Amino acid sequence: MNFTSLILASGSPRRDQLLKQIGLKFSVIPSSVYEDFSLALSPEAFTEHWAREKAKSVANTNENSLVLGADTIVVLDGKILGKPKDEHDSFSMLQSMSGKTHEVITGVSLISINSEIDFTFNEKTFVSFNTLSDDHIRYYIDNYSPFDKAGSYGIQDWFSVHIHKIEGCYFNVMGLPLSAFYQRYNALLNSKID
Amino acid sequence: MNFTSLILASGSPRRDQLLKQIGLKFSVIPSSVYEDFSLALSPEAFTEHWAREKAKSVANTNENSLVLGADTIVVLDGKILGKPKDEHDSFSMLQSMSGKTHEVITGVSLISINSEIDFTFNEKTFVSFNTLSDDHIRYYIDNYSPFDKAGSYGIQDWFSVHIHKIEGCYFNVMGLPLSAFYQRYNALLNSKID
Repeated sequence: MNFTSLILASGSPRRDQLLKQIGLKFSVIPSSVYEDFSLALSPEAFTEHWAREKAKSVANTNENSLVLGADTIVVLDGKILGKPKDEHDSFSMLQSMSGKTHEVITGVSLISINSEIDFTFNEKTFVSFNTLSDDHIRYYIDNYSPFDKAGSYGIQDWFSVHIHKIEGCYFNVMGLPLSAFYQRYNALLNSKID
Repeated sequence: MNFTSLILASGSPRRDQLLKQIGLKFSVIPSSVYEDFSLALSPEAFTEHWAREKAKSVANTNENSLVLGADTIVVLDGKILGKPKDEHDSFSMLQSMSGKTHEVITGVSLISINSEIDFTFNEKTFVSFNTLSDDHIRYYIDNYSPFDKAGSYGIQDWFSVHIHKIEGCYFNVMGLPLSAFYQRYNALLNSKID
């Protein structure tokens, strides 16, 4: 049996926008999975674990659909940075990333119960910041409230002026590695067409 | 004497969008400079030459303003690719870029007659394409008509599914290296405040 529809198990407006950009039809059902940052996993395994948990929680009650779960983290000097808790956390996060290169890792999971699909991968992009002054950081936090974003910045908003280089997939930094996802998604579609 | 306003000397909707993204106030006056591709210059010098010609042509009749000119080209195997002439040209361009890495170079020029500013630089980004099937290329050309774009693709539209890696500034590929531009622009502003 084939899946009948695609569901994005994420409330991220950026992932929604990216899937629309590549012309896919889908519906959105955010998962209510609570992400436990104390889990002792490598950053790559961490993102895959939570992407899969998110996809699974929505797939279990939508057995005919293909469900897409994703989890994006920022890794600086080997330490995982999630979403900032508050203004203070946001400020010290951005301060610690100033003038450095960090990694953005997104785990992506595709699950369909009735089609017996259970596939997960991750993608990594390197992002290099300019040196940030305290004034610039404060201006950004005051005007853009980046509290819903891993690492406390949005590559597609005003903060882009401080990013002088990336290496890897740009869309991965926005929350979904479009090229890698599309290739896997098409491979699944083709393998399910008899 | 300081400049009183910023003018974008380009009709590109992408450059307009990028300047808005970083919160700048500006007006748009496209230059009518005709770009001669037969000019015997290195790719870097070529973009700087035409960026400066575009900025100059608008600056000469707007002497109190700071004028921003830009020129973006794609370089594949040492050869400059501009905007495609027609569907056929677009098809063969994309075919030649399939599975390879090319360079995107943007020349940026800032000119203000009365403030005696005449500053030009260029920025390079490497972009790696997946292997493209003829069907994918045809689908893209039929649905997205990428005839106004150097290299015949838009990194921010459906074509993004075929770009697995970039190295450098993402916004440079869209037509304006935001981070590099912003740093130079701010340096000019600060040097002009007495």
